[in-house]
Amino acid sequence: MKKLKIGLAGLGTVGRGVYEILKKDAKILELKSQTIFEIVAVSARSNKDFVDSKIKFYSNAIDLANDSEVDVVIEVIGGTTLAKELVETAIKNGKKVITANKALIAEFGSEISALVEKYNGHIGFEASTAGANPVIKNFKESFVSNEITEFYAILNGTCNFILTKMGNEGSNYLETLAQAQKLGYAEADPTLDIKGIDTAHKLAILSAISSSSKPAFKKLHIEGVDEISIEDVKLADELGYKIKLLGIYKKLGDSCQQTIYPALLKKCDKIAQVDGPFNAVLVNTSNASWNLSIGRGAGGLTTGSAIVADLIDIACGRSSFLFGVENSKLSEANVINISQRVGKYFLKLIIDKNSAQKTNIAEVIFGNKILVEQAAFIDANEEIICGFLINSQVEKDLTEILKNLDSGLVKSSKFLRVEEIGF
Amino acid sequence: MKKLKIGLAGLGTVGRGVYEILKKDAKILELKSQTIFEIVAVSARSNKDFVDSKIKFYSNAIDLANDSEVDVVIEVIGGTTLAKELVETAIKNGKKVITANKALIAEFGSEISALVEKYNGHIGFEASTAGANPVIKNFKESFVSNEITEFYAILNGTCNFILTKMGNEGSNYLETLAQAQKLGYAEADPTLDIKGIDTAHKLAILSAISSSSKPAFKKLHIEGVDEISIEDVKLADELGYKIKLLGIYKKLGDSCQQTIYPALLKKCDKIAQVDGPFNAVLVNTSNASWNLSIGRGAGGLTTGSAIVADLIDIACGRSSFLFGVENSKLSEANVINISQRVGKYFLKLIIDKNSAQKTNIAEVIFGNKILVEQAAFIDANEEIICGFLINSQVEKDLTEILKNLDSGLVKSSKFLRVEEIGF
Repeated sequence: MKKLKIGLAGLGTVGRGVYEILKKDAKILELKSQTIFEIVAVSARSNKDFVDSKIKFYSNAIDLANDSEVDVVIEVIGGTTLAKELVETAIKNGKKVITANKALIAEFGSEISALVEKYNGHIGFEASTAGANPVIKNFKESFVSNEITEFYAILNGTCNFILTKMGNEGSNYLETLAQAQKLGYAEADPTLDIKGIDTAHKLAILSAISSSSKPAFKKLHIEGVDEISIEDVKLADELGYKIKLLGIYKKLGDSCQQTIYPALLKKCDKIAQVDGPFNAVLVNTSNASWNLSIGRGAGGLTTGSAIVADLIDIACGRSSFLFGVENSKLSEANVINISQRVGKYFLKLIIDKNSAQKTNIAEVIFGNKILVEQAAFIDANEEIICGFLINSQVEKDLTEILKNLDSGLVKSSKFLRVEEIGF
Repeated sequence: MKKLKIGLAGLGTVGRGVYEILKKDAKILELKSQTIFEIVAVSARSNKDFVDSKIKFYSNAIDLANDSEVDVVIEVIGGTTLAKELVETAIKNGKKVITANKALIAEFGSEISALVEKYNGHIGFEASTAGANPVIKNFKESFVSNEITEFYAILNGTCNFILTKMGNEGSNYLETLAQAQKLGYAEADPTLDIKGIDTAHKLAILSAISSSSKPAFKKLHIEGVDEISIEDVKLADELGYKIKLLGIYKKLGDSCQQTIYPALLKKCDKIAQVDGPFNAVLVNTSNASWNLSIGRGAGGLTTGSAIVADLIDIACGRSSFLFGVENSKLSEANVINISQRVGKYFLKLIIDKNSAQKTNIAEVIFGNKILVEQAAFIDANEEIICGFLINSQVEKDLTEILKNLDSGLVKSSKFLRVEEIGF
C-alpha cells in the first residue's frame, strides 16, 4: 500500500483535530484512499502530550519543510510570517502543502499560486474558508461550469454567535462578546473576528475563485459587528429583519462588489436563519441557479475534516489551480467603491422628543429626499430612536443627505445596508 | 491546447442544456480547464434543429461508443436498456463516460464500477442525483474524511412541488398533480416520481457512497406521495409539521435504514423549509457534524451544469472510484426491514362522530397502549378526522395495535412517520 508521510506544523485545536482523525479513522481513510497516512514529524512551540513520542518533534517549523522524509506539510500555525516561509520552503522542496490559513491565501495567494505552478506542486486550502463546509471545492470544481454572479456568505462563527445571541436574548454587544469568550466561541483578542477581517480574508478567497482574479483583500470595504447596538437589532426585528455579518460578492459588468458589513436580511430568507456558530454560503450561478450550503465553520475535528479531505485529494492525485485558473491568467479585480453601492438602507436616527411627532417625523426630517417604506420606534426618555427602512439609494447620495440633516432635530444618525436576496 | 471530443447521446432537455453550455460558455470553460470541448457526434431518435449540422448524427446511440473520434460519451438517454449497453460499450472501448442516469447507477452501479476499473476508465454521474447540487462530489471527496452517520434528502422536485402546493393552497393531491404537469414540473406519466422510485434511485446511490457498500435499490422500502391526502397535510400543519418526501439513510451499528417515505418534519427544521422544485441534502458526519445543501434538482442548464463539471474533472485528470472505494471492497448493505423502525408517528383516524367525545377520544381508542402527545381534529359531517402525534413506537408493534382497533369506533386508520432531526 502507498504511504504518504506527513509533517504537521502546529499543535493547537486544528492540529490536534487532524492528528486525532488520522489516528482514529486510519482504517476507513485507508479504504477510501488506498493510502496509509503517517505523521512522521510535528512542530510547535512546545510538544504536546497527545503526540506519540516516537514522532519527530521540531521546535522550528521550517525544519519540517526541510525534512526529506516528509511528503506533505500541513500548516496550521496561522499568521503570514512563519507560515508563509514554511509553505514556500515546502513548495520549493517539492513537497505538497495543505493549509488552513485564510490570511496567507487572501494576502499572498497569487504569489503562492505562481510558486506552486513553478515547482509543479499542490496546495490544498479547503479548511481556510467555512471549515468543513466544502465551499472551496464546490466553487473550484462543481460550479466550474458556471459564471458565479453573486454570493452572500456568513463566514465567521464568532460574529454570527454574537448577533444571534443579541437577537434572541436582547443582551448588548459587550455582554454578548464576553459570554462568547467564556464559551470559547471568541478569542481572548477577538479583533480579527469582530472587526470583519477574518470574514474579509475568506471573502477575498471565494471572490478570487468566482471571478478568476487575484484576491483583492486590500481593496475590500470591511465593517465588523462591533458597532452594532442592541437598538439596531431590536428595530430591525420589529421591521421583520435580522442583522447578519455578510461577505458579499456581486459581479457588476466588468467590475464587482466585494464587501463585508452587517446587513439586514428578511427573517424569512434562508440564510438569515443560519444561527449560532454555523457558516453559510449562498451562491447564484449562471447555469445552476441558487445553491445554499450550511455547515460548521470551526472546531478541531470540523476543520481537521477539511484538511484530511485535502490529504485524500493528494493521495488520489486530484488537483486544481489555486484559484481555479492558471496564475498568469488571473485578472486584477476591479472592485467598486462602497460609495457606489445602490440598494436599500436601514437608518437609525436619534431624535429629540420635543421637536417632532412620530406620525410625520420622516417627512419633517427628510422632506422628499428619502422615501420611508417602514418605520419602527423606541421611546427613550427625552429621545425617540427611529428605525427607518428606506427606498433604494446610491450610497454616496445617502451619506450626503445624512450629513446635512437638521442637527437641532436629529441628534445622531447612522445607516446599515439592506440586502434583498430573494432566496 | 488539449481537446476533448464528445459524443452526446440524447437531445432532450438535459442534452440540450449540455449542448448550450458547451457553446455559450466555451471561453470560460477553456480558461478553467485548459481544454477545448468539442461535440463531434450526437445521437437521438431524431436530430434536433439546435444542433449544428456539421456534427455527426447517429440514430443508434451505440454508434457513438464505437466512433473512434469520440473521447468522452455523455449519456442522457435515461432508462437501463439502451443506456446500459451504450455505457458498457463506451467503457470497453476505452472512452470516458458521463451519465445523468440514476436508475442505471442505482441498479447496475456495482457492475459498472467493476467494468470501469477493469478498463481503467472513468465514469462521472454528478448529474444523477440532486441536479446541480454537488452532493456526489461532496459525499465522495469532501466528507471522505468522515463516517456518514445519517442523511435526510429531498431528491424529487415534482413531489416537493406537489407537497408544497398542497400545503400552501389547500388543494388536493390530484388537482395539484395536474397543475404540476401543466407547469412542466411533472411528467405526463409521473409514476417514477410520485411513487418514490426516482427518490429511491438517488437514495441508493448516496447510501452506497455513505456506507461503502453496493447500492441496495431492491432492498429499499419505498413509499411515494400519491397516498397523501389534503387532510394529512392540514392536520400535520395544525400540529406544527410539514410533510416532505424524504430519502433517509441512518447507520445503525452494522445495519442501516434506507427508506423513502413522506415524513412529518417540524416546520422550523431547515430542511422542512425547502419548498417547490428545490432539492436538499442534510447530512450528519462523524467529524464535520451537520451539513445542509440546497439547490435546483432539475432543468436543462442545471443538470447540464453538473455534467459539464464532470467533463472538466476528466479534462483535469480528477477521478475517484464510482462509489468512493474499489469495487471489490464494497460490502453488501445490511438494510433493516421498515417494521423494525423505532420512532415517532402521526396517526390519522376517521371516527364515527356519535361514538366518542373529542376530549377522551384517544383514551377510548388506544387505552394505555399509545401515548398521544398532540392532537388535531377536522369535523366532517358524521365523522371526526383525528390527527394524533404519538410517542415512540416500534413500527411492527404499531401496525399490530392499529390492526386491532375497535372497528365499530374507528372507520379507518393510517400512519405517517415523524422524523425528529434537530437541525
